Amino acid sequence: MNDSIISHKDLHEFAFQIFLKIGCPKEQASIATTALLRADLRGIDSHGVARLSGYVRLWEAKRINSKPDIKIVHESPSTAVVDGDAGLGLVVAPRAMEIAIAKAKIAGTGWVAVKNSNHFGIAGHHAMMALPHDMIGMAMTNASPLVAPTFSVERLLGTNPIAVAIPADTQPPFVADFATTTAANGKLEILQRKEQDAPVGWIQKKDGSVSTNPNELKDGGALIPLGSDREHGSHKGFCLGAWVDIFSAVLSGANYGPWVPPFVSFLAPPADPVGEGIGHFFGAMRIDAFRPADDFKKHMDNWIARLRSAKTVDDEEKLIIPGDPERESEEERIKSGIPINGKVLDDLKEVATKFSIQF
Amino acid sequence: MNDSIISHKDLHEFAFQIFLKIGCPKEQASIATTALLRADLRGIDSHGVARLSGYVRLWEAKRINSKPDIKIVHESPSTAVVDGDAGLGLVVAPRAMEIAIAKAKIAGTGWVAVKNSNHFGIAGHHAMMALPHDMIGMAMTNASPLVAPTFSVERLLGTNPIAVAIPADTQPPFVADFATTTAANGKLEILQRKEQDAPVGWIQKKDGSVSTNPNELKDGGALIPLGSDREHGSHKGFCLGAWVDIFSAVLSGANYGPWVPPFVSFLAPPADPVGEGIGHFFGAMRIDAFRPADDFKKHMDNWIARLRSAKTVDDEEKLIIPGDPERESEEERIKSGIPINGKVLDDLKEVATKFSIQF
Repeated sequence: MNDSIISHKDLHEFAFQIFLKIGCPKEQASIATTALLRADLRGIDSHGVARLSGYVRLWEAKRINSKPDIKIVHESPSTAVVDGDAGLGLVVAPRAMEIAIAKAKIAGTGWVAVKNSNHFGIAGHHAMMALPHDMIGMAMTNASPLVAPTFSVERLLGTNPIAVAIPADTQPPFVADFATTTAANGKLEILQRKEQDAPVGWIQKKDGSVSTNPNELKDGGALIPLGSDREHGSHKGFCLGAWVDIFSAVLSGANYGPWVPPFVSFLAPPADPVGEGIGHFFGAMRIDAFRPADDFKKHMDNWIARLRSAKTVDDEEKLIIPGDPERESEEERIKSGIPINGKVLDDLKEVATKFSIQF
Repeated sequence: MNDSIISHKDLHEFAFQIFLKIGCPKEQASIATTALLRADLRGIDSHGVARLSGYVRLWEAKRINSKPDIKIVHESPSTAVVDGDAGLGLVVAPRAMEIAIAKAKIAGTGWVAVKNSNHFGIAGHHAMMALPHDMIGMAMTNASPLVAPTFSVERLLGTNPIAVAIPADTQPPFVADFATTTAANGKLEILQRKEQDAPVGWIQKKDGSVSTNPNELKDGGALIPLGSDREHGSHKGFCLGAWVDIFSAVLSGANYGPWVPPFVSFLAPPADPVGEGIGHFFGAMRIDAFRPADDFKKHMDNWIARLRSAKTVDDEEKLIIPGDPERESEEERIKSGIPINGKVLDDLKEVATKFSIQF
């Protein structure tokens, strides 16, 4: 199929129907759809409906439970561990974030580690749930091992993203959401489709040598931690990815490091798991547990305005406040629809046919 | 003077005497000395006694208060804001970390934002205070603006380091401690002494163009966020530095961004402060607020052992677990003494003469 533009409403309705078809209770299907579509709206196309058929296949392989009993298995005033019961991460993550927010209302902050979950879409969506409560939100997750730490030829960590959402007053919120690698996997997928080389510093070959082939991961290559090489601080990117892995999985009892199960049904999970499913970690901090929220938000306005007005190398290229491009995409795509790649469209048609849904 | 090796005991006693001479109460002088010397022991020479004369000059300029009344000005069950009363960061930070640990004992986690403080030495020292309590420790601080965010020619953030310390069982703890720039300022100082060029990607000229001159900062140049350039993710390094700045200063009421006062007495603080002093942020998370500490620590052992055994590109170059090099340095230097650079030694002699202390 050719690339097409589909309205947010139609795409939302379609994904919602699919989640119902695989057996999600209505409320959970709605939560999952909102989380999934948020990626498409925010321009992170690799994490939106492009993944829908993959979720369906994992459900068919009985690796995703569409009727999970998500529950707290351990807690303290400001913490909880949540068992996701092998549910969709798109459902488990918002539930865990709600618990973090509820804890923060009483204890000032709330921190929730999650085990036994699956791919949760974009981290930023979950972190941003804190914003309407005048809280700072954080979300992180581990992921299947595709990343070789500095000096390693083995893939031992995932792209392990971190999101931090911070409210402002009249300025839009600060929303950072990034993989702890030089480039996210989604950027390689774009290069694969365009048949273009990747920059040096994004990927390495199976033997650890330099590669610019965006398909290198299929030949046993690996993504590289943020920093690109030791001289430019890739050990710091490794620290970040490790931190996310440990908070998400060692704290919760999920699988960590090379034991994280793959997100695709054609690759079997490791035969010797060290925990349950994949892990996430969420945080919510009530601003007024530190200082009056109005004071804080006025200073955030000042922070954002000052940085936004920075003198730049090139007048055309302004300093980008984290979250700006995604927010602009969201505003645009809600109005004008969501561009869907031809291959993704084929994939969605196939899912529609499988479940006898109009698309 | 030539470079020399001085015993840890002698160097400790010397620094302690200096802190007493500038008026620190005995207990605070002892806390400051331990924090300062920890940097020398752990091989982070730029943050140890090399800074002692700078602290003295800031005290002479009345920008450091040697008898601070450090107090909590706002709190919730899991949070506090601490006013450092313009004290040495070396004294204020351990006090704030103690408060975070005390909060974590009751609420599961403790998070302390600090305003009105000064340079706090190495972040890792404070984060590691959590380890004997079976807690995860975190420490971050903002710093004088030397970093140009992606696309900016203006210096708008500091090197804003993050430290995370995580206990294990039989393995040594995981201790990450890194500036959120490609390279820390200390690394430039080493190149300056050796009269060597810096790699491309560490620094930029005043106009934002590429530089390899390690003295570029003196001519209005800037350090670069982790990632080196946009294509290799420097916007992610910027997100990290921004996050540290906001948690440390906007949450606490300290100065942020370009308003952070310089660490040297010959540069005046900005005339239009937006807060008080510099800011820090600390966290302590009780492991057993998530899962039994023994379970967690056994899995950390497994995590560390598996990564340490990674197949590497070169058999001589093993994967480095965060904290390994610093711990090895500490063990070695406690035994064999601390190498002190000739220029630093001259500086310390001058301080000794000023206060009529034997050195």
